[in-house]
Amino acid sequence: MEKLKFKLVIAYDGTAYQGWQVQKIGTGVQEKIETVLARYFPSSPQLHSSSRTDTGVHALGMVAHFEVPRAEVKIPVARLAIALNAFLPDDIRVLEATRTAADFHARFDAGGKQYRYFIWNHHAMNPLLIGRAWHVPRKLDPAKMRAAAKLFVGKHDFKSFAANHPYEMESTVRTLFRCDVKKSGKMFTITIEGDGFLYKMCRGIAGTLVQLGYGRFTMAEVKAMFAKTNRCAAGMSAPAHGLVLWKVFYRRSQKSKSKGRHKTSPRSRRLDTGS
Amino acid sequence: MEKLKFKLVIAYDGTAYQGWQVQKIGTGVQEKIETVLARYFPSSPQLHSSSRTDTGVHALGMVAHFEVPRAEVKIPVARLAIALNAFLPDDIRVLEATRTAADFHARFDAGGKQYRYFIWNHHAMNPLLIGRAWHVPRKLDPAKMRAAAKLFVGKHDFKSFAANHPYEMESTVRTLFRCDVKKSGKMFTITIEGDGFLYKMCRGIAGTLVQLGYGRFTMAEVKAMFAKTNRCAAGMSAPAHGLVLWKVFYRRSQKSKSKGRHKTSPRSRRLDTGS
Repeated sequence: MEKLKFKLVIAYDGTAYQGWQVQKIGTGVQEKIETVLARYFPSSPQLHSSSRTDTGVHALGMVAHFEVPRAEVKIPVARLAIALNAFLPDDIRVLEATRTAADFHARFDAGGKQYRYFIWNHHAMNPLLIGRAWHVPRKLDPAKMRAAAKLFVGKHDFKSFAANHPYEMESTVRTLFRCDVKKSGKMFTITIEGDGFLYKMCRGIAGTLVQLGYGRFTMAEVKAMFAKTNRCAAGMSAPAHGLVLWKVFYRRSQKSKSKGRHKTSPRSRRLDTGS
Repeated sequence: MEKLKFKLVIAYDGTAYQGWQVQKIGTGVQEKIETVLARYFPSSPQLHSSSRTDTGVHALGMVAHFEVPRAEVKIPVARLAIALNAFLPDDIRVLEATRTAADFHARFDAGGKQYRYFIWNHHAMNPLLIGRAWHVPRKLDPAKMRAAAKLFVGKHDFKSFAANHPYEMESTVRTLFRCDVKKSGKMFTITIEGDGFLYKMCRGIAGTLVQLGYGRFTMAEVKAMFAKTNRCAAGMSAPAHGLVLWKVFYRRSQKSKSKGRHKTSPRSRRLDTGS
Protein backbone atom coordinates (compact mmCIF):
# COMPACT_ATOMS: atom_id res chain seq x y z
CA MET A 1 0.00 0.00 0.00
CA GLU A 2 1.51 3.29 -1.11
CA LYS A 3 1.89 5.87 1.61
CA LEU A 4 2.29 9.62 1.41
CA LYS A 5 4.34 11.59 3.90
CA PHE A 6 3.58 15.14 5.06
CA LYS A 7 5.66 17.67 6.94
CA LEU A 8 4.04 20.20 9.24
CA VAL A 9 5.47 23.41 10.69
CA ILE A 10 3.61 24.08 13.91
CA ALA A 11 3.26 27.02 16.29
CA TYR A 12 1.76 26.89 19.76
CA ASP A 13 1.33 28.81 22.95
CA GLY A 14 2.60 26.27 25.49
CA THR A 15 0.75 27.83 28.46
CA ALA A 16 -2.13 25.36 28.50
CA TYR A 17 -0.13 22.21 27.68
CA GLN A 18 2.08 19.72 29.49
CA GLY A 19 4.60 20.04 26.69
CA TRP A 20 4.65 18.46 23.26
CA GLN A 21 4.36 14.83 24.27
CA VAL A 22 2.54 13.54 27.28
CA GLN A 23 3.31 10.21 28.90
CA LYS A 24 0.85 10.12 31.77
CA ILE A 25 -1.21 13.07 32.99
CA GLY A 26 -2.27 16.26 31.23
CA THR A 27 -2.63 17.32 27.62
CA GLY A 28 0.17 17.43 25.09
CA VAL A 29 0.21 19.44 21.89
CA GLN A 30 0.96 16.28 19.91
CA GLU A 31 -2.26 14.52 20.93
CA LYS A 32 -4.32 17.62 20.11
CA ILE A 33 -3.01 17.53 16.54
CA GLU A 34 -3.27 13.74 16.23
CA THR A 35 -6.94 13.97 17.23
CA VAL A 36 -7.57 16.37 14.34
CA LEU A 37 -5.49 14.25 11.92
CA ALA A 38 -7.74 11.31 12.79
CA ARG A 39 -10.77 13.31 11.57
CA TYR A 40 -9.28 13.50 8.09
CA PHE A 41 -7.28 10.26 7.97
CA PRO A 42 -9.03 7.09 9.21
CA SER A 43 -5.70 5.35 9.89
CA SER A 44 -5.09 7.86 12.74
CA PRO A 45 -1.51 8.67 11.84
CA GLN A 46 1.09 9.27 14.52
CA LEU A 47 3.02 12.54 14.50
CA HIS A 48 6.82 12.33 14.69
CA SER A 49 8.36 15.60 15.83
CA SER A 50 11.82 17.14 15.59
CA SER A 51 11.87 17.69 19.32
CA ARG A 52 9.80 17.66 22.46
CA THR A 53 9.17 20.83 24.33
CA ASP A 54 8.70 20.92 28.07
CA THR A 55 5.55 22.04 29.93
CA GLY A 56 4.81 25.69 29.20
CA VAL A 57 7.46 26.14 26.50
CA HIS A 58 6.21 27.75 23.28
CA ALA A 59 7.00 26.99 19.64
CA LEU A 60 6.84 28.98 16.42
CA GLY A 61 8.75 26.51 14.26
CA MET A 62 8.16 22.98 15.55
CA VAL A 63 8.45 20.45 12.71
CA ALA A 64 6.68 17.09 12.61
CA HIS A 65 5.83 14.50 9.97
CA PHE A 66 3.16 11.87 9.51
CA GLU A 67 2.39 9.22 6.93
CA VAL A 68 -0.95 8.04 5.56
CA PRO A 69 -2.13 5.64 2.84
CA ARG A 70 -2.58 7.48 -0.45
CA ALA A 71 -6.23 6.41 -0.60
CA GLU A 72 -6.98 8.42 2.54
CA VAL A 73 -5.70 11.70 1.09
CA LYS A 74 -8.83 13.57 -0.02
CA ILE A 75 -7.68 17.13 0.66
CA PRO A 76 -5.24 18.92 -1.66
CA VAL A 77 -2.02 19.57 0.27
CA ALA A 78 -2.41 23.32 -0.34
CA ARG A 79 -5.58 23.21 1.81
CA LEU A 80 -4.28 20.84 4.49
CA ALA A 81 -2.99 23.46 6.98
CA ILE A 82 -6.28 25.35 6.82
CA ALA A 83 -8.26 22.12 7.18
CA LEU A 84 -6.32 21.12 10.29
CA ASN A 85 -6.53 24.61 11.82
CA ALA A 86 -10.31 24.54 11.44
CA PHE A 87 -10.49 21.93 14.21
CA LEU A 88 -7.45 22.83 16.29
CA PRO A 89 -7.69 25.13 19.34
CA ASP A 90 -6.57 28.73 18.70
CA ASP A 91 -3.37 28.22 20.70
CA ILE A 92 -2.11 25.58 18.23
CA ARG A 93 -1.66 26.47 14.56
CA VAL A 94 -0.30 24.57 11.58
CA LEU A 95 1.72 27.26 9.77
CA GLU A 96 2.69 25.08 6.82
CA ALA A 97 1.80 21.63 5.54
CA THR A 98 3.76 20.15 2.63
CA ARG A 99 4.36 16.78 0.97
CA THR A 100 7.76 15.40 1.84
CA ALA A 101 10.04 12.57 0.72
CA ALA A 102 9.22 9.03 1.86
CA ASP A 103 12.46 8.83 3.83
CA PHE A 104 12.23 12.22 5.55
CA HIS A 105 12.27 12.07 9.33
CA ALA A 106 11.53 15.21 11.36
CA ARG A 107 13.86 14.18 14.20
CA PHE A 108 16.62 12.14 12.57
CA ASP A 109 17.08 14.57 9.67
CA ALA A 110 17.15 17.70 11.82
CA GLY A 111 20.59 19.29 11.52
CA GLY A 112 19.98 21.90 14.15
CA LYS A 113 17.48 23.92 16.10
CA GLN A 114 17.13 27.48 17.17
CA TYR A 115 15.57 28.51 20.46
CA ARG A 116 14.92 32.06 21.60
CA TYR A 117 14.62 33.10 25.21
CA PHE A 118 12.86 36.40 26.02
CA ILE A 119 13.48 38.50 29.14
CA TRP A 120 11.75 41.74 30.14
CA ASN A 121 14.15 43.71 32.33
CA HIS A 122 12.38 46.48 34.25
CA HIS A 123 10.87 46.82 37.71
CA ALA A 124 7.40 46.49 36.17
CA MET A 125 6.42 43.74 33.74
CA ASN A 126 5.18 44.64 30.25
CA PRO A 127 1.50 43.61 30.49
CA LEU A 128 1.49 42.67 26.79
CA LEU A 129 4.25 40.08 27.39
CA ILE A 130 2.83 38.17 30.34
CA GLY A 131 3.42 34.47 29.65
CA ARG A 132 5.74 35.38 26.75
CA ALA A 133 8.85 36.66 28.50
CA TRP A 134 10.57 36.17 31.85
CA HIS A 135 10.16 39.22 34.05
CA VAL A 136 13.54 40.01 35.63
CA PRO A 137 13.31 43.19 37.77
CA ARG A 138 17.03 43.29 38.74
CA LYS A 139 19.19 45.35 36.39
CA LEU A 140 21.01 43.24 33.82
CA ASP A 141 24.35 44.11 32.25
CA PRO A 142 24.02 43.31 28.53
CA ALA A 143 27.78 43.61 27.82
CA LYS A 144 28.63 41.01 30.45
CA MET A 145 25.87 38.70 29.24
CA ARG A 146 27.07 39.02 25.63
CA ALA A 147 30.62 38.14 26.63
CA ALA A 148 29.51 35.15 28.71
CA ALA A 149 27.17 33.89 25.97
CA LYS A 150 30.25 33.30 23.77
CA LEU A 151 31.48 30.68 26.28
CA PHE A 152 28.60 28.41 25.28
CA VAL A 153 29.38 28.42 21.55
CA GLY A 154 31.19 25.34 20.26
CA LYS A 155 31.38 21.71 21.34
CA HIS A 156 31.02 21.30 25.10
CA ASP A 157 29.77 18.90 27.71
CA PHE A 158 26.56 20.69 28.78
CA LYS A 159 25.77 18.37 31.68
CA SER A 160 26.02 21.24 34.22
CA PHE A 161 23.34 23.19 32.39
CA ALA A 162 20.82 20.44 31.80
CA ALA A 163 18.35 18.82 34.16
CA ASN A 164 18.63 15.11 34.73
CA HIS A 165 16.24 13.30 32.52
CA PRO A 166 14.46 10.00 33.15
CA TYR A 167 15.90 8.65 29.88
CA GLU A 168 19.42 7.28 29.71
CA MET A 169 21.55 9.69 27.68
CA GLU A 170 24.61 8.29 26.02
CA SER A 171 26.38 11.61 25.91
CA THR A 172 25.88 15.11 27.23
CA VAL A 173 28.18 16.68 24.66
CA ARG A 174 26.48 19.04 22.23
CA THR A 175 27.63 21.70 19.78
CA LEU A 176 26.16 25.21 19.80
CA PHE A 177 26.58 27.20 16.57
CA ARG A 178 25.28 30.35 18.14
CA CYS A 179 24.54 31.81 21.55
CA ASP A 180 24.03 35.55 21.65
CA VAL A 181 22.23 38.22 23.62
CA LYS A 182 20.41 41.13 22.00
CA LYS A 183 18.93 44.07 23.90
CA SER A 184 16.18 46.23 22.48
CA GLY A 185 14.84 48.70 25.04
CA LYS A 186 13.87 46.64 28.08
CA MET A 187 13.72 43.38 26.13
CA PHE A 188 16.63 40.93 26.10
CA THR A 189 16.60 38.08 23.57
CA ILE A 190 18.97 35.13 23.93
CA THR A 191 19.28 33.17 20.69
CA ILE A 192 20.66 29.66 21.04
CA GLU A 193 21.29 27.47 18.02
CA GLY A 194 22.82 24.02 18.13
CA ASP A 195 22.91 20.50 16.77
CA GLY A 196 20.98 19.17 19.74
CA PHE A 197 19.79 20.09 23.18
CA LEU A 198 19.68 18.24 26.49
CA TYR A 199 16.63 18.36 28.73
CA LYS A 200 16.11 21.97 29.95
CA MET A 201 19.52 22.94 28.58
CA CYS A 202 18.35 26.25 27.02
CA ARG A 203 16.70 27.22 30.27
CA GLY A 204 19.87 26.37 32.22
CA ILE A 205 21.94 28.56 29.89
CA ALA A 206 19.40 31.44 30.01
CA GLY A 207 19.13 31.24 33.80
CA THR A 208 22.92 31.25 34.19
CA LEU A 209 23.33 34.22 31.80
CA VAL A 210 20.67 36.21 33.66
CA GLN A 211 22.26 35.50 37.04
CA LEU A 212 25.62 36.58 35.64
CA GLY A 213 23.85 39.66 34.24
CA TYR A 214 22.83 40.85 37.69
CA GLY A 215 26.12 39.94 39.34
CA ARG A 216 25.39 36.60 40.95
CA PHE A 217 28.23 34.98 38.95
CA THR A 218 31.42 36.23 37.36
CA MET A 219 32.59 35.30 33.89
CA ALA A 220 35.28 33.05 35.45
CA GLU A 221 32.68 31.24 37.52
CA VAL A 222 30.52 30.54 34.47
CA LYS A 223 33.61 29.30 32.63
CA ALA A 224 34.35 26.89 35.51
CA MET A 225 30.81 25.47 35.49
CA PHE A 226 31.39 23.37 32.36
CA ALA A 227 34.13 21.20 33.90
CA LYS A 228 32.06 20.39 36.98
CA THR A 229 29.47 18.41 34.94
CA ASN A 230 27.05 18.86 37.80
CA ARG A 231 23.71 20.68 37.56
CA CYS A 232 24.20 22.24 40.99
CA ALA A 233 27.37 23.99 39.81
CA ALA A 234 25.52 26.16 37.28
CA GLY A 235 22.85 28.82 37.55
CA MET A 236 19.10 28.50 37.86
CA SER A 237 16.75 27.14 35.25
CA ALA A 238 14.92 30.05 33.61
CA PRO A 239 11.11 29.68 33.59
CA ALA A 240 9.49 27.83 30.68
CA HIS A 241 7.22 30.67 29.52
CA GLY A 242 10.17 32.75 28.20
CA LEU A 243 11.34 30.03 25.82
CA VAL A 244 10.28 29.54 22.19
CA LEU A 245 11.39 26.75 19.83
CA TRP A 246 12.01 29.14 16.95
CA LYS A 247 13.17 27.02 14.03
CA VAL A 248 14.38 23.57 13.05
CA PHE A 249 17.05 23.29 10.36
CA TYR A 250 17.27 20.54 7.77
CA ARG A 251 20.65 20.50 6.13
CA ARG A 252 19.94 18.75 2.88
CA SER A 253 17.00 19.28 0.65
CA GLN A 254 14.86 16.21 0.98
CA LYS A 255 15.07 15.28 -2.68
CA SER A 256 18.83 15.52 -3.04
CA LYS A 257 19.76 13.55 0.02
CA SER A 258 21.54 10.24 -0.45
CA LYS A 259 19.88 6.89 0.02
CA GLY A 260 22.13 6.20 3.00
CA ARG A 261 20.05 8.00 5.56
CA HIS A 262 19.92 5.00 7.83
CA LYS A 263 23.68 5.23 8.10
CA THR A 264 23.31 8.54 9.96
CA SER A 265 25.62 8.92 12.90
CA PRO A 266 24.48 7.83 16.36
CA ARG A 267 24.42 11.58 17.18
CA SER A 268 21.54 12.38 14.90
CA ARG A 269 19.58 9.35 16.02
CA ARG A 270 19.91 10.25 19.65
CA LEU A 271 16.69 10.97 21.46
CA ASP A 272 16.91 14.69 22.01
CA THR A 273 14.51 15.98 24.55
CA GLY A 274 15.10 19.63 23.90
CA SER A 275 14.65 22.97 25.63
CA MET B 1 -2.02 74.02 51.07
CA GLU B 2 1.00 73.00 49.06
CA LYS B 3 0.38 70.32 46.49
CA LEU B 4 2.79 67.99 44.76
CA LYS B 5 2.28 66.80 41.21
CA PHE B 6 3.30 63.40 39.88
CA LYS B 7 3.60 62.07 36.35
CA LEU B 8 2.98 58.39 35.58
CA VAL B 9 3.92 56.38 32.50
CA ILE B 10 1.45 53.54 32.28
CA ALA B 11 1.22 50.30 30.30
CA TYR B 12 -1.87 48.15 29.98
CA ASP B 13 -3.36 45.25 28.13
CA GLY B 14 -6.67 46.76 26.99
CA THR B 15 -8.42 43.40 26.49
CA ALA B 16 -10.36 43.47 29.77
CA TYR B 17 -11.21 47.19 29.80
CA GLN B 18 -13.76 49.52 28.24
CA GLY B 19 -10.92 51.86 27.36
CA TRP B 20 -9.10 54.40 29.50
CA GLN B 21 -12.06 56.39 30.72
CA VAL B 22 -15.51 55.03 31.35
CA GLN B 23 -18.61 57.18 31.33
CA LYS B 24 -21.36 54.68 32.05
CA ILE B 25 -20.93 50.91 31.93
CA GLY B 26 -17.85 48.75 32.32
CA THR B 27 -14.40 49.22 33.80
CA GLY B 28 -11.87 51.77 32.66
CA VAL B 29 -8.13 51.66 33.25
CA GLN B 30 -8.28 55.13 34.82
CA GLU B 31 -10.62 54.09 37.64
CA LYS B 32 -8.48 51.01 38.40
CA ILE B 33 -5.48 53.27 39.00
CA GLU B 34 -7.48 55.92 40.86
CA THR B 35 -8.73 53.23 43.26
CA VAL B 36 -5.13 52.32 44.09
CA LEU B 37 -4.11 55.99 44.37
CA ALA B 38 -6.88 56.41 46.96
CA ARG B 39 -5.21 53.71 49.13
CA TYR B 40 -2.09 55.84 49.42
CA PHE B 41 -3.56 59.36 49.18
CA PRO B 42 -6.68 60.09 51.29
CA SER B 43 -7.70 62.98 49.04
CA SER B 44 -8.41 60.41 46.27
CA PRO B 45 -6.65 62.28 43.47
CA GLN B 46 -8.04 62.29 39.96
CA LEU B 47 -5.82 61.14 37.10
CA HIS B 48 -5.49 63.41 34.07
CA SER B 49 -4.25 61.55 31.02
CA SER B 50 -2.63 62.58 27.76
CA SER B 51 -5.28 60.71 25.80
CA ARG B 52 -8.11 58.29 26.06
CA THR B 53 -7.86 54.92 24.44
CA ASP B 54 -10.86 53.08 23.09
CA THR B 55 -12.20 49.72 24.32
CA GLY B 56 -9.61 46.99 23.78
CA VAL B 57 -6.76 49.29 22.70
CA HIS B 58 -3.45 48.70 24.51
CA ALA B 59 -0.88 51.15 25.82
CA LEU B 60 2.81 50.94 26.60
CA GLY B 61 3.41 54.66 27.05
CA MET B 62 0.24 56.31 28.35
CA VAL B 63 1.06 59.41 30.40
CA ALA B 64 -1.08 60.80 33.22
CA HIS B 65 -0.62 63.19 36.12
CA PHE B 66 -2.22 63.68 39.53
CA GLU B 67 -1.81 66.13 42.35
CA VAL B 68 -1.94 65.56 46.11
CA PRO B 69 -1.35 67.65 49.24
CA ARG B 70 2.29 67.41 50.33
CA ALA B 71 1.20 66.13 53.75
CA GLU B 72 -0.25 63.00 52.12
CA VAL B 73 3.00 62.00 50.42
CA LYS B 74 4.49 59.29 52.69
CA ILE B 75 6.20 57.16 50.02
CA PRO B 76 9.46 58.25 48.40
CA VAL B 77 8.82 58.90 44.71
CA ALA B 78 11.43 56.26 43.80
CA ARG B 79 9.16 53.64 45.39
CA LEU B 80 5.84 55.01 44.11
CA ALA B 81 5.58 52.91 40.92
CA ILE B 82 6.29 49.72 42.84
CA ALA B 83 3.81 50.71 45.57
CA LEU B 84 1.04 51.31 43.01
CA ASN B 85 1.83 48.10 41.09
CA ALA B 86 1.50 46.11 44.31
CA PHE B 87 -2.27 46.73 44.25
CA LEU B 88 -2.93 47.03 40.51
CA PRO B 89 -4.07 44.06 38.43
CA ASP B 90 -1.27 42.41 36.37
CA ASP B 91 -2.66 43.83 33.13
CA ILE B 92 -2.03 47.42 34.28
CA ARG B 93 1.50 48.51 35.23
CA VAL B 94 2.97 51.83 36.23
CA LEU B 95 6.29 51.83 34.36
CA GLU B 96 7.54 55.13 35.80
CA ALA B 97 6.41 57.56 38.47
CA THR B 98 8.18 60.91 38.80
CA ARG B 99 7.63 64.33 40.43
CA THR B 100 6.67 66.92 37.87
CA ALA B 101 6.29 70.70 37.71
CA ALA B 102 3.20 72.28 39.25
CA ASP B 103 2.01 73.54 35.87
CA PHE B 104 2.59 70.30 33.92
CA HIS B 105 -0.52 68.92 32.24
CA ALA B 106 -0.42 65.45 30.66
CA ARG B 107 -2.93 66.41 27.95
CA PHE B 108 -2.37 70.11 27.27
CA ASP B 109 1.43 69.82 27.23
CA ALA B 110 1.55 66.78 24.97
CA GLY B 111 3.27 67.78 21.72
CA GLY B 112 2.60 64.51 19.98
CA LYS B 113 1.82 60.84 20.29
CA GLN B 114 2.99 57.69 18.64
CA TYR B 115 0.71 54.74 18.01
CA ARG B 116 1.76 51.38 16.57
CA TYR B 117 -0.55 49.03 14.78
CA PHE B 118 0.44 45.34 14.49
CA ILE B 119 -0.72 42.97 11.73
CA TRP B 120 0.08 39.26 11.37
CA ASN B 121 -0.13 38.40 7.67
CA HIS B 122 -0.32 34.65 7.12
CA HIS B 123 -3.13 32.15 6.61
CA ALA B 124 -2.64 30.98 10.22
CA MET B 125 -2.46 33.32 13.21
CA ASN B 126 0.64 33.37 15.40
CA PRO B 127 -0.74 31.86 18.65
CA LEU B 128 1.66 33.99 20.71
CA LEU B 129 0.12 37.18 19.28
CA ILE B 130 -3.57 36.54 19.84
CA GLY B 131 -5.09 39.77 21.17
CA ARG B 132 -1.87 41.64 20.27
CA ALA B 133 -2.03 41.83 16.47
CA TRP B 134 -4.71 41.84 13.79
CA HIS B 135 -4.75 38.57 11.88
CA VAL B 136 -5.01 39.34 8.16
CA PRO B 137 -4.91 36.11 6.09
CA ARG B 138 -5.01 37.81 2.67
CA LYS B 139 -1.60 38.53 1.16
CA LEU B 140 -0.50 42.13 1.71
CA ASP B 141 1.80 44.09 -0.59
CA PRO B 142 4.24 45.95 1.68
CA ALA B 143 5.59 48.21 -1.12
CA LYS B 144 2.11 49.49 -1.94
CA MET B 145 1.29 50.00 1.73
CA ARG B 146 4.53 51.92 2.28
CA ALA B 147 3.79 54.21 -0.64
CA ALA B 148 0.22 54.86 0.50
CA ALA B 149 1.31 55.48 4.10
CA LYS B 150 3.20 58.57 2.90
CA LEU B 151 -0.12 60.13 1.82
CA PHE B 152 -1.11 60.47 5.47
CA VAL B 153 2.00 62.40 6.54
CA GLY B 154 1.51 66.17 6.93
CA LYS B 155 -1.43 68.42 7.73
CA HIS B 156 -4.73 66.99 6.48
CA ASP B 157 -8.40 66.92 7.26
CA PHE B 158 -8.71 63.35 8.62
CA LYS B 159 -12.52 63.37 8.85
CA SER B 160 -12.83 60.47 6.36
CA PHE B 161 -10.67 58.24 8.54
CA ALA B 162 -12.20 58.97 11.93
CA ALA B 163 -15.43 57.75 13.47
CA ASN B 164 -18.00 60.31 14.46
CA HIS B 165 -17.64 61.10 18.10
CA PRO B 166 -20.33 62.16 20.58
CA TYR B 167 -18.28 65.26 21.43
CA GLU B 168 -18.43 68.33 19.24
CA MET B 169 -15.06 68.67 17.49
CA GLU B 170 -14.09 72.14 16.36
CA SER B 171 -11.75 70.84 13.69
CA THR B 172 -10.86 67.54 12.09
CA VAL B 173 -7.50 68.77 10.78
CA ARG B 174 -4.47 67.07 12.31
CA THR B 175 -0.80 66.85 11.42
CA LEU B 176 1.00 63.52 11.18
CA PHE B 177 4.78 63.64 11.49
CA ARG B 178 5.18 60.00 10.57
CA CYS B 179 3.18 57.18 9.03
CA ASP B 180 5.22 54.20 7.90
CA VAL B 181 4.90 50.48 7.36
CA LYS B 182 7.61 48.01 8.38
CA LYS B 183 7.56 44.33 7.53
CA SER B 184 9.53 41.74 9.48
CA GLY B 185 8.70 38.20 8.41
CA LYS B 186 4.92 37.87 8.64
CA MET B 187 4.55 40.88 10.95
CA PHE B 188 3.62 44.31 9.63
CA THR B 189 3.97 47.32 11.93
CA ILE B 190 2.33 50.63 11.07
CA THR B 191 3.83 53.50 13.08
CA ILE B 192 1.73 56.66 13.23
CA GLU B 193 2.96 59.78 14.95
CA GLY B 194 1.10 63.07 15.08
CA ASP B 195 0.16 66.16 17.02
CA GLY B 196 -3.29 64.80 17.75
CA PHE B 197 -5.70 62.07 16.79
CA LEU B 198 -9.41 61.99 16.12
CA TYR B 199 -11.63 59.24 17.48
CA LYS B 200 -10.57 55.89 15.92
CA MET B 201 -8.38 57.73 13.41
CA CYS B 202 -5.40 55.34 13.73
CA ARG B 203 -7.69 52.39 13.17
CA GLY B 204 -9.22 54.06 10.11
CA ILE B 205 -5.77 54.63 8.64
CA ALA B 206 -4.58 51.08 9.46
CA GLY B 207 -7.75 49.53 8.03
CA THR B 208 -7.47 51.58 4.84
CA LEU B 209 -3.77 50.68 4.40
CA VAL B 210 -4.52 46.98 4.88
CA GLN B 211 -7.37 47.06 2.38
CA LEU B 212 -5.08 48.81 -0.10
CA GLY B 213 -2.46 46.15 0.70
CA TYR B 214 -4.69 43.35 -0.52
CA GLY B 215 -6.02 45.23 -3.52
CA ARG B 216 -9.37 46.54 -2.35
CA PHE B 217 -8.24 50.14 -3.04
CA THR B 218 -5.74 51.74 -5.38
CA MET B 219 -3.34 54.48 -4.37
CA ALA B 220 -5.44 57.00 -6.32
CA GLU B 221 -8.57 55.94 -4.44
CA VAL B 222 -6.89 56.41 -1.07
CA LYS B 223 -5.65 59.82 -2.21
CA ALA B 224 -9.22 60.81 -3.12
CA MET B 225 -10.60 59.75 0.27
CA PHE B 226 -9.24 62.83 2.06
CA ALA B 227 -11.29 65.34 0.06
CA LYS B 228 -14.56 63.48 0.63
CA THR B 229 -14.50 64.20 4.41
CA ASN B 230 -16.89 61.31 4.88
CA ARG B 231 -16.18 58.20 6.93
CA CYS B 232 -17.92 55.98 4.34
CA ALA B 233 -15.45 57.07 1.67
CA ALA B 234 -12.46 55.47 3.42
CA GLY B 235 -11.56 51.92 4.37
CA MET B 236 -12.60 49.84 7.33
CA SER B 237 -11.68 50.48 10.93
CA ALA B 238 -8.98 48.00 11.98
CA PRO B 239 -9.79 46.07 15.17
CA ALA B 240 -8.81 47.60 18.51
CA HIS B 241 -6.58 44.73 19.70
CA GLY B 242 -3.85 45.49 17.12
CA LEU B 243 -3.35 49.05 18.35
CA VAL B 244 -0.91 50.23 21.02
CA LEU B 245 -0.47 53.80 22.32
CA TRP B 246 3.31 53.62 22.17
CA LYS B 247 4.59 56.96 23.42
CA VAL B 248 3.56 60.51 24.28
CA PHE B 249 5.95 63.34 23.48
CA TYR B 250 6.42 66.47 25.56
CA ARG B 251 8.20 69.17 23.59
CA ARG B 252 9.63 71.30 26.33
CA SER B 253 11.30 70.07 29.45
CA GLN B 254 8.94 70.80 32.28
CA LYS B 255 11.37 73.06 34.16
CA SER B 256 12.37 75.23 31.24
CA LYS B 257 8.93 75.95 29.91
CA SER B 258 7.67 79.51 30.03
CA LYS B 259 5.10 80.73 32.50
CA GLY B 260 2.69 81.36 29.65
CA ARG B 261 1.37 77.83 29.40
CA HIS B 262 -2.23 78.94 29.67
CA LYS B 263 -1.76 80.87 26.46
CA THR B 264 -1.34 77.59 24.55
CA SER B 265 -3.13 77.50 21.23
CA PRO B 266 -6.70 76.19 21.00
CA ARG B 267 -5.20 73.17 19.15
CA SER B 268 -3.32 71.89 22.13
CA ARG B 269 -6.28 72.41 24.45
CA ARG B 270 -8.60 70.49 22.18
CA LEU B 271 -10.10 67.36 23.66
CA ASP B 272 -8.31 64.66 21.73
CA THR B 273 -9.94 61.31 22.02
CA GLY B 274 -7.25 59.35 20.31
CA SER B 275 -6.81 56.07 18.53
